[in-house]
Amino acid sequence: MKKIGEIGWVEKDIPSIGPQDALLKPLAIAPCTSDVHTVWEGAIGERHDLILGHEAVGEVVEVGNLVKNIKVGDRVLVPAITPDWGSDAAQRGFSSQTGAPLGGWKYSNYKDGSMAEYFTCNEADFNLAILPENISPADGVMLVDMWSTGFMGAENANIPLGGSVAVLGIGAVGLSAILGAKLQGAGRIFAVGTRPVSVEVAKEYGATDIISYKDGDTGDQIKEATDGEGVDAVIVAGGGSDILIDAVKSARAGSVVSNINYFGEGENIPIPRTPWGFGMADIDIHTGLCPGGRTRMEQLANIVTYGRGDPSKLITHRFDALEDLEEALLLMKDKPRNLIKPVVILGD
Amino acid sequence: MKKIGEIGWVEKDIPSIGPQDALLKPLAIAPCTSDVHTVWEGAIGERHDLILGHEAVGEVVEVGNLVKNIKVGDRVLVPAITPDWGSDAAQRGFSSQTGAPLGGWKYSNYKDGSMAEYFTCNEADFNLAILPENISPADGVMLVDMWSTGFMGAENANIPLGGSVAVLGIGAVGLSAILGAKLQGAGRIFAVGTRPVSVEVAKEYGATDIISYKDGDTGDQIKEATDGEGVDAVIVAGGGSDILIDAVKSARAGSVVSNINYFGEGENIPIPRTPWGFGMADIDIHTGLCPGGRTRMEQLANIVTYGRGDPSKLITHRFDALEDLEEALLLMKDKPRNLIKPVVILGD
Amino acid sequence: MKKIGEIGWVEKDIPSIGPQDALLKPLAIAPCTSDVHTVWEGAIGERHDLILGHEAVGEVVEVGNLVKNIKVGDRVLVPAITPDWGSDAAQRGFSSQTGAPLGGWKYSNYKDGSMAEYFTCNEADFNLAILPENISPADGVMLVDMWSTGFMGAENANIPLGGSVAVLGIGAVGLSAILGAKLQGAGRIFAVGTRPVSVEVAKEYGATDIISYKDGDTGDQIKEATDGEGVDAVIVAGGGSDILIDAVKSARAGSVVSNINYFGEGENIPIPRTPWGFGMADIDIHTGLCPGGRTRMEQLANIVTYGRGDPSKLITHRFDALEDLEEALLLMKDKPRNLIKPVVILGD
Amino acid sequence: MKKIGEIGWVEKDIPSIGPQDALLKPLAIAPCTSDVHTVWEGAIGERHDLILGHEAVGEVVEVGNLVKNIKVGDRVLVPAITPDWGSDAAQRGFSSQTGAPLGGWKYSNYKDGSMAEYFTCNEADFNLAILPENISPADGVMLVDMWSTGFMGAENANIPLGGSVAVLGIGAVGLSAILGAKLQGAGRIFAVGTRPVSVEVAKEYGATDIISYKDGDTGDQIKEATDGEGVDAVIVAGGGSDILIDAVKSARAGSVVSNINYFGEGENIPIPRTPWGFGMADIDIHTGLCPGGRTRMEQLANIVTYGRGDPSKLITHRFDALEDLEEALLLMKDKPRNLIKPVVILGD
Repeated sequence: MKKIGEIGWVEKDIPSIGPQDALLKPLAIAPCTSDVHTVWEGAIGERHDLILGHEAVGEVVEVGNLVKNIKVGDRVLVPAITPDWGSDAAQRGFSSQTGAPLGGWKYSNYKDGSMAEYFTCNEADFNLAILPENISPADGVMLVDMWSTGFMGAENANIPLGGSVAVLGIGAVGLSAILGAKLQGAGRIFAVGTRPVSVEVAKEYGATDIISYKDGDTGDQIKEATDGEGVDAVIVAGGGSDILIDAVKSARAGSVVSNINYFGEGENIPIPRTPWGFGMADIDIHTGLCPGGRTRMEQLANIVTYGRGDPSKLITHRFDALEDLEEALLLMKDKPRNLIKPVVILGD
Repeated sequence: MKKIGEIGWVEKDIPSIGPQDALLKPLAIAPCTSDVHTVWEGAIGERHDLILGHEAVGEVVEVGNLVKNIKVGDRVLVPAITPDWGSDAAQRGFSSQTGAPLGGWKYSNYKDGSMAEYFTCNEADFNLAILPENISPADGVMLVDMWSTGFMGAENANIPLGGSVAVLGIGAVGLSAILGAKLQGAGRIFAVGTRPVSVEVAKEYGATDIISYKDGDTGDQIKEATDGEGVDAVIVAGGGSDILIDAVKSARAGSVVSNINYFGEGENIPIPRTPWGFGMADIDIHTGLCPGGRTRMEQLANIVTYGRGDPSKLITHRFDALEDLEEALLLMKDKPRNLIKPVVILGD
Repeated sequence: MKKIGEIGWVEKDIPSIGPQDALLKPLAIAPCTSDVHTVWEGAIGERHDLILGHEAVGEVVEVGNLVKNIKVGDRVLVPAITPDWGSDAAQRGFSSQTGAPLGGWKYSNYKDGSMAEYFTCNEADFNLAILPENISPADGVMLVDMWSTGFMGAENANIPLGGSVAVLGIGAVGLSAILGAKLQGAGRIFAVGTRPVSVEVAKEYGATDIISYKDGDTGDQIKEATDGEGVDAVIVAGGGSDILIDAVKSARAGSVVSNINYFGEGENIPIPRTPWGFGMADIDIHTGLCPGGRTRMEQLANIVTYGRGDPSKLITHRFDALEDLEEALLLMKDKPRNLIKPVVILGD
Repeated sequence: MKKIGEIGWVEKDIPSIGPQDALLKPLAIAPCTSDVHTVWEGAIGERHDLILGHEAVGEVVEVGNLVKNIKVGDRVLVPAITPDWGSDAAQRGFSSQTGAPLGGWKYSNYKDGSMAEYFTCNEADFNLAILPENISPADGVMLVDMWSTGFMGAENANIPLGGSVAVLGIGAVGLSAILGAKLQGAGRIFAVGTRPVSVEVAKEYGATDIISYKDGDTGDQIKEATDGEGVDAVIVAGGGSDILIDAVKSARAGSVVSNINYFGEGENIPIPRTPWGFGMADIDIHTGLCPGGRTRMEQLANIVTYGRGDPSKLITHRFDALEDLEEALLLMKDKPRNLIKPVVILGD
């Protein structure tokens, strides 16, 4: 990213590392919708010559002198969120909010990202997780943000065993939320979206009903399908500033609306007063930022290792050279109908 | 209530009771701001010849043939919310939402309230609690809605021991939230309001800092007082449609905004996008409706019995005849500066 | 059950019902290990001419005059636990403990059970759930106790997404716990048991590792398989008085031991001091009694309806006449190696 | 501690510090019952020339080169438990179990403690908290273990607002649990103990009923005082290997037994089978080790600053020289009847 609205290649020195850091080269990189927000919408403000990218699997090429467990040559999952684990926010249980709101999100925000020949990771021992041999770098890169964010959406949704869930949006993170809802014990899962390629994965990941906003108001459709009651949990995984209106209308009294959508524009986000029971219908609105850190990455890897879910279903486009990153990024920007997620694979 | 905008006395038959119900006569009655919303704002829609009132202590004069524990002559706390305990919502843990959103709220909503010579209570064994001898009817009536709602605001706020809390609004329910926050282990408690009579009780109930919106933006003041960080929990106990803007601005990343405010107007309730961390700052928005039922009432009575709080501090005006109800209700409408809560006391 | 140690048929009048009750005839009945405890071990004390059975699907033949939703002819799931929903324990969130410890367990304990031509259900509207057409009575009867208990074991175990679980015991309830752990997002699941018929279902339900106590100490084997660390959660679904010793030894510091085992003998149940970290290793021991009620039954039915699990896998023996109950019960007593669960099917 | 059973002064070099550590000199030190367990009972095994002490307030005399926030001259609360904040256990939410079970407990266990002219602290930025000016070193030292442990006992007990609690044991940590229970909103609080000096503080901290085991079985007395029901929560803050028998007998169906007792002897800790409802009465047994770290210390300091509790009530004996430590430690060993907690004060 050269500046808002402009991308291109920048020549920089190999970054130096601190005593707890690691230097890595990427084995697999995926562009993210957030990168698109950052560049073309200026969502996080102006940045100059910032290297993009926060979804990567890498190989360690150097470690700081205080790093004990991670070694040169290790192939590792690099979480999109790399907390400062001692910080006040982490001690309070909010590790993604370290230092500042959203402060655990460092790559392509506070520092250069992974779309480069080399990139660094802070607190390497605590943020990097060994990539198990049974997981390819391409599959692994689906875990570090998409799965972690989508699953968090389900974890925050307090889904009763056998309960009903609606997932609004079926991009890569929404699809991950569907799988997350299934892994949290949901019964009926409504997937709200229209792209055929996503609908297919939605069903494979556990969706039982597909709702298209083209067939009418989302909330009305979900209410109708649930005898006027609404669902036990709504996961908001996409949509514009007004999406909480659909979400709250879809939720029953005594439920959770779990947001994993990045609201990129608008002064305020509206909650619909009457469907919200005038603020008294026990419809809670949860939020969060993708969990990071080594333990989270290891737990997500277990989901693959023990056959609970298959991350490769999210990958629709594969590239094999660093130069392809620009094309992959533009894919995310243009969102052709056959796209879920592109990956640039530099090792295997 | 004769119709929206008009109050007066209505002659009705003594209500008949079902096999699980009780018939009561009031010993103490308090009007509530909701009654004002109902009559003069038409908040719940048109009603004709509806008897108002949902805050009462009563004496049992008749019980249905399936009632086992409650007996004629018992003096009882009558919760504002009287759930159908077998309902699906109650089984799911949301007893105040039985039957419909806010469906546990029956008095002066679905049926006649307690501002009458006689009134009834459904599922008497499970909704009525014996008034302990050490609690006067006037004090008791502060528990059935004000304390139960205000305390719920604190319980939902997930306050860390020693954590900081801001309570927006210091009417009777906001003051109860302050006491609730103290009873949940809060350290610093900001009370946001201006009336001297309320400020005094706020301090007695545990507030450590008083914030006036007259001195500037509430969120700015609270951020400034907390080194730019915000508080661990915000309890919204009053305000107009825009109050969540103040609330979210006052909250730190990783916190809860706990709403106990009845939003009476506006199509949508706005959440401020940037202070909310674009929907990703782990600032959850909880809601709820006053918990009812016998067990809740007994637990609140324990707070008085064991010296943890004094409900009489909320009472600023006392009347002693049923006829005074109109004056008491108009007090709630006009809110003179020396008012917190009026009570009409018909027994002792 | 004629008395402790003796079973046989007893002639009784058709039971009369109260205004909230239903009278049912069984469509499918399963004997339970608890029935064996009751008869041959006298686990709940002496009983004379008590009709056994608390696992049934039935058809409604009569309803009390206050019953509104359940109708004659309805085919219903009858939960093993039928709470008094208004009771203090239910209001506190412990519906299975209504009236007395374990008081929600009425069938074949406080009153006659379902191994009869007719049996009753209290609070029929709130305890009976319509059997969906896609679920057979035989499959349905697996839900009312086995699944509800086993799943509760997993729900109480606080399993992190991708976390590791050990299930001690792979009878019908242990197998249900394995499926429950999978439905709660577990990664690796150790099943501890030896019967081939159960081992096979354990794998189908989600177990990834089979541990036999014949190969050495259970705790040692699980510690060894987890690099000396132990698992995130242990579900105790069988075993004698000493089984918590194995359980706590298998658990890591910061974990839950979730008990669903009925401890039938011994004065005390020992916790091993050192593996328990001298009482300070954050290894919590959770307990509970099978959740009952209509909502729970509906949620479990959703698990079947939406393809999340198949209850028929638990059924190894099928009978088709009421007279076969004795043989089915003796199967549960004798536990031949090819048995998981027998069912007597009287309707379809 | 020279070896098990023998104490005395040892001459050692001033300890060197790592890049994230701090070197401190003590301003106030308190001996703990654990020190007595360590020396005279050999509870943690043999140790040679180990410096005791894990309750201290100190002044920083040197910091490592990576320490940013803590500065030389700072007066700080030093938590008894000093986690490695990046560790797997901390990321899972169990910061006191870092590295090994109880691994956050380093002082006088894995390394030299604070009963010395100088001592160190790991991860100084994240474990040390500035001592507010309104708190004396002597008062501050009551927070780092006694309050933190006792309050955790209450936090883990899931006390309903207005609920009943029994605290077994009224030494310094039991008294802290009583205050903690009050700060969590308990109504009735039973304190079980006999020493007059402790009974007095128990009442000041919020106990409403005093139970003496000299008057009969603890469980029987508590059951009798609660109409045979038992309490909502039991906090175990003292007692021998059999204390869980009293605890579980005191607990109602649907409650928590929260253990903060260090079990120093015996192979197994018995749970009484029948009072535990055969493992099915929803009586959970929680455990934990004192929470440490900077944020916890700051939150506890807030309890003092905002007038929610007074730590000085725990201090019965004050000394003013390092040499007095031996006498203070022997006081803890001999427990004269007028003792709650001794402090050696070296600064003010």
